[in-house]
Amino acid sequence: MADLSDVQSTFALDDVIALLARTPVTLDALLRGLPEWWTRANEGDSTWSAFDVVGHLIHGEETDWLPRVRIVLDHGESRTFDKFNREAQFDSSAPQSLEERLDRFTALRRENLTQLASLTLTAADLDRTGRHPAFGVVTLRQLLATWVAHDLDHVMQISRVLGRQYANEVGPWRAYLRVISGEQG
Amino acid sequence: MADLSDVQSTFALDDVIALLARTPVTLDALLRGLPEWWTRANEGDSTWSAFDVVGHLIHGEETDWLPRVRIVLDHGESRTFDKFNREAQFDSSAPQSLEERLDRFTALRRENLTQLASLTLTAADLDRTGRHPAFGVVTLRQLLATWVAHDLDHVMQISRVLGRQYANEVGPWRAYLRVISGEQG
Repeated sequence: MADLSDVQSTFALDDVIALLARTPVTLDALLRGLPEWWTRANEGDSTWSAFDVVGHLIHGEETDWLPRVRIVLDHGESRTFDKFNREAQFDSSAPQSLEERLDRFTALRRENLTQLASLTLTAADLDRTGRHPAFGVVTLRQLLATWVAHDLDHVMQISRVLGRQYANEVGPWRAYLRVISGEQG
Repeated sequence: MADLSDVQSTFALDDVIALLARTPVTLDALLRGLPEWWTRANEGDSTWSAFDVVGHLIHGEETDWLPRVRIVLDHGESRTFDKFNREAQFDSSAPQSLEERLDRFTALRRENLTQLASLTLTAADLDRTGRHPAFGVVTLRQLLATWVAHDLDHVMQISRVLGRQYANEVGPWRAYLRVISGEQG
């Protein structure tokens, strides 16, 4: 666990929405039109390619984030969240081109942010609680913050998996590149 | 050092240009308009904020990547590359708003890619060699691959520094979020 003593602790619903709205545009800017050898490459056995990650983000929009928000609002702690299938992007029903996946993620995220805005959450709502299948009681604020951090986690992962494909090409510079060495730096 | 035995080893100048052209758009999509508390936050002492990283990328465009390409082509191994100042973004001459930095990075990158295209590098050119102050002899191919991997390294870093600001807000989900835990995963 990294030392987190210096991190900010600032949370505002506007910031959550600002970041969530940016992720599809960011991934589109980075990935659309890149050659397939790159976007389908992973980091070895049981790791994900950029293409896989976008599929995972789609599934989160469909089944995880906003449905859990609704469970908190409608049922509180009385109904445990459904478990999230982290491998659904490997189902044959997932869109099979990167461009389709980017389009679908963009559309789903837009729709979910519209729905989120329509809930007109108050500060008091953010303290409402639900029940996570592994963690137990969590707050709506934690769920929304996690939606954001999860996006950023996967932007980080996509950058790393793309960069790592040049591990051999960079020659001696490998030592300076954390994206390749695996150092956090 | 991560296990890199499974990585691709594919290099084409078109791919280099494709990725290098995408980075300014990607960072603009992610960062422009985010609140300043977020883009100026770092990960603790001697670490960089997103704002700092964009300044570092500007300095690379101004003094590092294309100038080194030209040194290889004009002088080969006879002239050692100038050292890269990794802290130049803290000089007072660096643009002082994130929006200015994004604009400047975008303009410099575009100009440098135009210059790179004008060199009409051949496959044989990519094997030409220069001299790095620490590593000794390197190829033009390695330099160009490193330009790409360095971009991705810093996209990864920016995602991480943004995500980590929610370290406390995510509550128990912290354990699942590599962007916060520091795990590579």
